[in-house]
Amino acid sequence: MSLSLYDVSIPVYQRMLGNLASFLDKAEAHAKAGGPGLETLAEAKLIDDMASFTRQIQLASDAAKGGAARFAQQEAPSMPDTETTFAELRERIAKTQAFLASIKREDVDGGEGRTIELKLPNRTMTFTGTEFLTGFSLPNFLFHVTTAYAILRAQGVPLGKMDFLAGGQALAA
Amino acid sequence: MSLSLYDVSIPVYQRMLGNLASFLDKAEAHAKAGGPGLETLAEAKLIDDMASFTRQIQLASDAAKGGAARFAQQEAPSMPDTETTFAELRERIAKTQAFLASIKREDVDGGEGRTIELKLPNRTMTFTGTEFLTGFSLPNFLFHVTTAYAILRAQGVPLGKMDFLAGGQALAA
Repeated sequence: MSLSLYDVSIPVYQRMLGNLASFLDKAEAHAKAGGPGLETLAEAKLIDDMASFTRQIQLASDAAKGGAARFAQQEAPSMPDTETTFAELRERIAKTQAFLASIKREDVDGGEGRTIELKLPNRTMTFTGTEFLTGFSLPNFLFHVTTAYAILRAQGVPLGKMDFLAGGQALAA
Repeated sequence: MSLSLYDVSIPVYQRMLGNLASFLDKAEAHAKAGGPGLETLAEAKLIDDMASFTRQIQLASDAAKGGAARFAQQEAPSMPDTETTFAELRERIAKTQAFLASIKREDVDGGEGRTIELKLPNRTMTFTGTEFLTGFSLPNFLFHVTTAYAILRAQGVPLGKMDFLAGGQALAA
């Protein structure tokens, strides 16, 4: 048995985006039960100069599809960040999941030493596949999923750590 | 070239704990410049029923040393969660880093199919090494580092995403 680059990347994006979608379910149930309304939650932030709940989901989507595209040497589908409602956020997650489901294991595996370039506004970062995964993509992706969770928690939505880790729980026997 | 279980686990804990220590530096500088005092920050939470900044650091430490110990089939050093000051939080991170530095690559690599059991109060979760890494250890560890960051940000400490990803940035050419 050997470690597969696919196994430590694509399924992590998939599982955690699934959990992110389940946060939306709990937020909706909480809104119906008298908690903050969905418009309030969509725009909620931890502090004024941090990104909103909606933006955290867009950034988690970008991290997942951008990471998967780089590992598979493909173009990520463009998604123009126009979401404002929970229905549109669900659709954004679903479109991201559809792209992830299209990624072939054989296009990712073996890419641990492949050069990955990340063009930022003021410079280009160059990584190996392993470095990009561990030093950029997973921390950045999980940052946005965690911050989305934290924003809902700070608004009183009843989420627990096992909602965050749910896919991992299902994985385990 | 093949993917190494060591490379996708131990250095992630090490780099992100280093970044966590740098959040403490920025929080101290901000306190000196008139921001919230260190006692306030140590006890700060996003909402009453979430863990404090101090507790997030203890939990990040537990996730890192517990994960490393399971991958290397060792006992993690016990750390009794008595920290209350920034100096003690720094020491906690340093002790965790010392344990991580003692983990040998050859004790981790090849463990992707090894069974890892996680005993919880009410049940035992069973994973392969890969499943434990991707479905539990990394998401859980990065959850606590991100939440520590979020608590400081919500208190006005001037941190940015590149503080969170700093080690990844240094990795890249």
